[in-house]
Amino acid sequence: MEGGGGVDHLADERQKARFDVDEMKIVWAGSRHAFEVSDRVARLVASDPAFRKDNRTMLSRKELFKSTLKKTAYAWKRIMELRLTEEEASRLRFFIDEPAYTDLHWGMFVPAIKGQGTEEQQQKWLPLAYKMQIIGCYAQTELGHGSNVQGLETTATFDPQTDEFIIDSPTLTSSKWWPGGLGKVSTHAVAYARLIVNGQDHGVHGFIVQLRSLEDHMPLPGITVGDIGMKFGSGAYNSMDNGVLRFDHVRIPRNQMLMRVLQVTREGKVMQSDVPRQLIYGTMVFVRQTIVSDASCALSRAVCIATRYSAVRRQFGSQNGGPETQVIDYKTQQSRLFPLLASAYAFRFVGEWLKWLYTDVTQRLQANDFSTLPEAHACTAGLKSLTTSATADAIEECRKLCGGHGYLSSSGLPELFAVYIPACTYEGDNTVMLLQVARFLMKTVSQLGSGKQPVGSTAYMSRAEHLMQCCCSAQRVEDWLKPNVVLEAFEARALRMSVACAQNLSKFSNPEEGFAELSADLVEAATAHCQLIVVSKFIEKLQQDIPGKGVKEQLQTLCSVYSLYVLHKHLGDFLSGGCITPKQASLANEQLRSLYSQVRPNAIALVDAFNYTDHYLGSVLGRYDGNVYPKLYEEAWKDPLNDSVVPDGYHEYIRPVLKQQLRNARL
Amino acid sequence: MEGGGGVDHLADERQKARFDVDEMKIVWAGSRHAFEVSDRVARLVASDPAFRKDNRTMLSRKELFKSTLKKTAYAWKRIMELRLTEEEASRLRFFIDEPAYTDLHWGMFVPAIKGQGTEEQQQKWLPLAYKMQIIGCYAQTELGHGSNVQGLETTATFDPQTDEFIIDSPTLTSSKWWPGGLGKVSTHAVAYARLIVNGQDHGVHGFIVQLRSLEDHMPLPGITVGDIGMKFGSGAYNSMDNGVLRFDHVRIPRNQMLMRVLQVTREGKVMQSDVPRQLIYGTMVFVRQTIVSDASCALSRAVCIATRYSAVRRQFGSQNGGPETQVIDYKTQQSRLFPLLASAYAFRFVGEWLKWLYTDVTQRLQANDFSTLPEAHACTAGLKSLTTSATADAIEECRKLCGGHGYLSSSGLPELFAVYIPACTYEGDNTVMLLQVARFLMKTVSQLGSGKQPVGSTAYMSRAEHLMQCCCSAQRVEDWLKPNVVLEAFEARALRMSVACAQNLSKFSNPEEGFAELSADLVEAATAHCQLIVVSKFIEKLQQDIPGKGVKEQLQTLCSVYSLYVLHKHLGDFLSGGCITPKQASLANEQLRSLYSQVRPNAIALVDAFNYTDHYLGSVLGRYDGNVYPKLYEEAWKDPLNDSVVPDGYHEYIRPVLKQQLRNARL
Repeated sequence: MEGGGGVDHLADERQKARFDVDEMKIVWAGSRHAFEVSDRVARLVASDPAFRKDNRTMLSRKELFKSTLKKTAYAWKRIMELRLTEEEASRLRFFIDEPAYTDLHWGMFVPAIKGQGTEEQQQKWLPLAYKMQIIGCYAQTELGHGSNVQGLETTATFDPQTDEFIIDSPTLTSSKWWPGGLGKVSTHAVAYARLIVNGQDHGVHGFIVQLRSLEDHMPLPGITVGDIGMKFGSGAYNSMDNGVLRFDHVRIPRNQMLMRVLQVTREGKVMQSDVPRQLIYGTMVFVRQTIVSDASCALSRAVCIATRYSAVRRQFGSQNGGPETQVIDYKTQQSRLFPLLASAYAFRFVGEWLKWLYTDVTQRLQANDFSTLPEAHACTAGLKSLTTSATADAIEECRKLCGGHGYLSSSGLPELFAVYIPACTYEGDNTVMLLQVARFLMKTVSQLGSGKQPVGSTAYMSRAEHLMQCCCSAQRVEDWLKPNVVLEAFEARALRMSVACAQNLSKFSNPEEGFAELSADLVEAATAHCQLIVVSKFIEKLQQDIPGKGVKEQLQTLCSVYSLYVLHKHLGDFLSGGCITPKQASLANEQLRSLYSQVRPNAIALVDAFNYTDHYLGSVLGRYDGNVYPKLYEEAWKDPLNDSVVPDGYHEYIRPVLKQQLRNARL
Repeated sequence: MEGGGGVDHLADERQKARFDVDEMKIVWAGSRHAFEVSDRVARLVASDPAFRKDNRTMLSRKELFKSTLKKTAYAWKRIMELRLTEEEASRLRFFIDEPAYTDLHWGMFVPAIKGQGTEEQQQKWLPLAYKMQIIGCYAQTELGHGSNVQGLETTATFDPQTDEFIIDSPTLTSSKWWPGGLGKVSTHAVAYARLIVNGQDHGVHGFIVQLRSLEDHMPLPGITVGDIGMKFGSGAYNSMDNGVLRFDHVRIPRNQMLMRVLQVTREGKVMQSDVPRQLIYGTMVFVRQTIVSDASCALSRAVCIATRYSAVRRQFGSQNGGPETQVIDYKTQQSRLFPLLASAYAFRFVGEWLKWLYTDVTQRLQANDFSTLPEAHACTAGLKSLTTSATADAIEECRKLCGGHGYLSSSGLPELFAVYIPACTYEGDNTVMLLQVARFLMKTVSQLGSGKQPVGSTAYMSRAEHLMQCCCSAQRVEDWLKPNVVLEAFEARALRMSVACAQNLSKFSNPEEGFAELSADLVEAATAHCQLIVVSKFIEKLQQDIPGKGVKEQLQTLCSVYSLYVLHKHLGDFLSGGCITPKQASLANEQLRSLYSQVRPNAIALVDAFNYTDHYLGSVLGRYDGNVYPKLYEEAWKDPLNDSVVPDGYHEYIRPVLKQQLRNARL
């Protein structure tokens, strides 16, 4: 998206592109409609000085937090003034690009009530939440429990005398810990606690608990609440009040337990409703699907910065006093950067597919068809893990690709990294996720002989006999451009790894012990399966009708880059399973190298297609116009340390050193 | 190192150890003397409240910078009061653990004068620097030039009329950019500039330039100087005033050019002295050698935190209401953590060896023997790259291994990461370094037939004929414990990759073009060579006499873990070169898995052996006593956001939202 109208230092680069960038923008956005909404809202945010964010990393925690409160209130005001649709409001929050309590209110609190509340409860609470007359958070994790939700210690004990639940934190480790928006803002929480009725533990359920007075914002009796302190980086997630919360026998009415799935009657009878429990998995599929889509955003942002700066930056290779070589022309730079560019597109498309999968699962659930749920659940868990891990690594790699200047906050990359990395842990730790995928794969493999056909992303396993024996047919470099050659190699690799794990597992008399012992291998097999999904969905995308001059060709190149990069990175898997030969590996590598040359002239246009404003990118190095050096220089002087030429502290701590007068100095 | 004397929650873990921890501490430190100095100085720092650092991430830039100035002055005062030796003073700065201008004064400014100044210049400047009557920095990199030192734009033009040099920044991109200590503190700089005499460019040389008045600290005429702004993370390197500097025709006396190697006479004659230019490479070897040693420190610190917390943290696996499983008992955790523990030891020992190598090179240089310099230079460049890249990744991996809590500043890991990662870029970008190694390897390979014997770390190449054909002899799992089996596999892999590159290179008619085209493969070959060095030096270490019950056995285990982990990670290299078979790879993996079980009971003691104080670790998760949860809870309340129960901004920005009064709010 164009900047201020000065000289475009990257104009030459843009002219090199061999495809229609505007059409690619639509492909990236998913549809013309999505593009138009995003484009409009992004410009709205970028042009409003109230949403400035370039000074964020210089603020103290308190200043930062207060400025975020201000922006959040202002954004809500604008949403109402402009009568934005839900879609537009969500894009607005996205482009404001600052973690805030509203993320949890809209993203977790409201959906929890929608998903787990009865009709009655929804009618009572949702209108309040929609108008933000109450602000809610999602209080699940505790100091001592994250991944193991079933191990939560907070209790909700039914008191039949008063028809109330008593919410309590019996131990220090049961303190709620991490919920965003909890520390300083939320008036309410959906808090998760062990349901205790009549001395019996009925497992973990959600309860709506008011935390603060709606009049003066003071915590209610029995509630101890606060912020858990500074987190990674400056700026970043420190604009969010992740909180700690202790309950000291806090009483809430019985009807504030979310009772869509399980009910507690006035008499203290615990009853399963006829709503299927599997609905919870539907929600998980939804949340994790959005995380995959966020991964492609974060990754594309980092790649956009690194790619543009790589075209601006020159180093070495000057001949006869001419300009030095653009670092984007170095093969070492290309071999690190272009696979990440390809990954951004790959994750985008697999995210799109997951969105479809979620719709499909939802429709089936409504028709009481649970058959595809385990597979869909495994897909989203695995892809959540794969894409977030890869994105976290890639952002840091992009920072390194910007050399020293990538270390400056004004490059935007440090904060992007700091704000992104929690995605590897929240909503399911990435290793735990892969183990869930592995469990699903082992089950699928074990049923292969039984006549039960594997479905969806595991359908390839039905061709087990062929895939266990097939030999890759690549004989020339160009053969690695054929989708079926690549796909079969990935399928064979994934299947052979799963089967090898299953065989090793069968040697253990106790399967759980075997699973634990072999878990590192199982994680690798799950990764192989997930990479196959990404590759196959990219290939499927290419089978669609994609208009625009040269757009499809570019995507074909990127698909090959992604696949052959993964193949090279995990070559050991492919070779040890005998899926390909060393000679074929070498051909694949040669093909990959020559693909980089094809990406090169299109690189700038391929990141322009993300259509990010300079405001959203928040990076001097990634500026649309490439005018990097003057702006870096300008930025530097804004640091508070430059408020005075002689620094605060000179007289007390520098001069006494220089003048050998430390002995009597007060230090 | 023991903490405050409360209950030791890790006492059980410590009793599991099967070796003498105190002896291991000496091995880690390198000698009993080194251990004693470190131990004494570490306690000194930890016990002095002036060196507190736990609030660092909450300070604003100005507060942080001022507090560092104070600590630095205080440290210098203590160094003099206690009459610390140079070694002790250096350890003191190390344990204070806060980047400050003194790092550059002692680490770069003084060595530059020592290395490049004439006797006369040293006599004039060093006494001033030793007493800190002047404070110096090292002004080399510019806004537009980092790696390509020969491309620097700053000029130093000799004016025969006045017998002066005129130092000038002719362009914006020639602004000095990054030098630590420059922005706000340094009074002097060794500035690098193109020497221009009589209109002729004599390349880049160092000049001593005074920047600020010694009376009032104001920049001298023609000098524009300031801080370049916030960098990655909170705390971290923001305590350092990395600076920007522009010269506007600044005049300095001719005798402030550092003239040990090249001289400019009063008459404007440029003369090479009889001091060999290679001395400069000796300095590089020295600096990079210390970076390898720093890598093992940073890595061991992260591993110490993650290992202790992994023993404290429990999740899942509770049976019959008993305690849950310690996460350190999960194979997925072990397979990620223990290789990093092994890497810490591996890097420690290769660092020790590099120290020896530097001494050896220095002695040879003094005897005018330059024969080993290229090889030593390649070793240090390569190991600098390998160890810093691995350490940066490992710190982040350790943070992830701490789950959600690793994201809190109080875990210490975010700041450790932020402060460490520049090591991948400074003193030689890691990719540029590996390409230098690759160049050296290609030269060595090309000379193999010529009768010139490869020396030092490349000596294995003299057995090229054997290594190109040999088959790995491992037939059983235990065979992978044999050092010669492992070593030969690594040698074969490294050699075959180098030879393959050389063969591909020979297909190009223009060798430089070929080198550029194949540079990604060359980087991989260089990496393989460097990993071989690490493995072989670890094995050599084990051939020494190592006293202490069980110490040698532990190190043998760690050596195997490191080697087999690298083998597994780069399996594609080993298989595609035919160095090992898929079957052997599977045996190696099985052996690796069983080694993890051997590391497990010793893990806590193995990190205790680093002998880090809780002060130095700076991590609630890594506390010696394992008392994590109460301290995390305590830490949280110290955040400034918790100064008040109702946050600053409530009345302006939260209440109007809740009360639907935004329309009239001033935002």
